[in-house]
Formats: sequence, structure tokens, C-alpha cells
Amino acid sequence: MLGNSYEGQVCSAARSLEVVGERWSLLIIRDALFGGVTRFSDFLRRLGLARNILAARLDGFVEAGIMERFSLEGSAYQEYRLTEKGRDLGPVIIALTDWGDRWAAPNGRPIIYRHVDCGGEVEQQLVCSHCRIVIEQDQVGIELGPGMTGAA
Amino acid sequence: MLGNSYEGQVCSAARSLEVVGERWSLLIIRDALFGGVTRFSDFLRRLGLARNILAARLDGFVEAGIMERFSLEGSAYQEYRLTEKGRDLGPVIIALTDWGDRWAAPNGRPIIYRHVDCGGEVEQQLVCSHCRIVIEQDQVGIELGPGMTGAA
Repeated sequence: MLGNSYEGQVCSAARSLEVVGERWSLLIIRDALFGGVTRFSDFLRRLGLARNILAARLDGFVEAGIMERFSLEGSAYQEYRLTEKGRDLGPVIIALTDWGDRWAAPNGRPIIYRHVDCGGEVEQQLVCSHCRIVIEQDQVGIELGPGMTGAA
Repeated sequence: MLGNSYEGQVCSAARSLEVVGERWSLLIIRDALFGGVTRFSDFLRRLGLARNILAARLDGFVEAGIMERFSLEGSAYQEYRLTEKGRDLGPVIIALTDWGDRWAAPNGRPIIYRHVDCGGEVEQQLVCSHCRIVIEQDQVGIELGPGMTGAA
């Protein structure tokens, strides 16, 4: 975890990056969420990162409440499963994938997200909760919210 | 830039993290995109990061085509402006903000994204391009795409 590395930043994006902004973090969560990976050895093989870094990231996720650690009865294996807080990072991973698909995938998209019921492709959209219409990013403004008051 | 740090990963999320996954990167882009910041000194003051790190990030963004550098005539100032490729990172920042709002904002949301036309709050949704309905994350599956073939 980056801890309070972005302490001067009163911003939920900064708070999120404190928890999942370290190298490999979001790729570990991607494999857990969309690849069904749970075991240390499987993360290690799929990601090809250093063992000590993987251990540090998984420990950090457990500490941050993003994953829970389970011991399998009668086995030396430990399993790591995403909590609701961890699964809720899906939109971040899908947004990163969308951007990479558009700007950094010269050979085409490596992975396509599909609606399991019908096979249709999944799109991420910005919607106005009042008008109920899809809006473009240049129609998005920002306003200071309650969390900004009382902040250091 | 992380360069080819995630080389073994054929994944658009990994490709994106190579470009914007380093510390401070997404917060610099957040300030440029939603705070209208363009000058080196303004990024420095708002973010409170080290001068050499900011310089390295901005140079990397120019190199990656995420920002363009402009010299103001008759001034020592240089301006950095997001390209379309850079502005297209908005959904990533909004997704990170949403997660932080839900899971790491004990004092309430610091910033609220609003539709400029009507003031309604902006929501990020997953939509099926076939059914045209909003879907939940557990209804999302993955399929290997063309970019996976021919990959190292």
C-alpha cells in the first residue's frame, strides 16, 4: 500500500490509488476478478512477477479489506478471494482496458468483455442521473462535495 | 513511463498501466482534465510532488502522445495540454473516483461530477451493446480477441 502517500490530496481518485496504485496491483485484481485466480502459485505463474512483490501485494489487499485469505483444509494452499470492496474495482479495470484497446492495441483487442446472457459487447458509459441520457466527457463538470469540508 | 514492464501481459489494462500507472500520473492527468491546469508551476503547487518527478511525468506524457507542450510567446512559461488520447483517460479517473467515494471517503465525497447542462450527477454504467440494458458486473464475461493471436 502507498499508505498516506497522497496525503495532501483530498480526492477519491487519490485515495483509490493509495490502495491499488502500486505496480501489479490492478493486474492481480484483474486476474482474480475476470480470470478466477485464487492461489498464490497461479497468480505467480500467470503474472510472472517476483514472489516477494506478489506476497506484499496480497498481504496489502487483505489488510485493506480487498481480499480475504482462506486456508484449504488438509492442504498447504492458501486462497485469496476478492471481497465486495475488491470486486467493486471492476469498472476501473474495464476503463483501463477500454483506453488500452483504443490507444495501445495495434494488433486488435486482446480481450473482449461480453454480456453473459446475450454475448453482446459491454460498453462503459457516462449517464446523467437526472436526464437519464448518455453524456460525453466534455459535458462533465466538477463540484466540491461534503468530503472537501473539514479536510486538512 | 514503465516501458515494457508488463511485457509478458497481453492485456489492454496492462498496456494502459505502462503509460499511466506510475505514481502521480493519473493525478496529474486529473488536474489537467478536470482542473484546467496547464502550467508546470500550477501542477507543482496543487499536487505538492517533487519537481523532478513532475518533470519526468510530463516529459513521458509528451513522449507518449498524451500531452502536447506549448511555449507561450514572450514568456518563459511552457504549457502542457492534453491530447485526445489524454482526455480519453477521463473514464479511468471517474472510475477510480467512484470507487474511492464508496470505499475510502469517510467524510463524504470530496468532488461530485455533474452534467453541465442540468446539474444532475454523473454515473458510470456498464451497458450491453446488444440488449441496450444496464448490466451488473457479475453479468460480464471475457473472451479472447484478435489481439491475443500473434502475441509473443
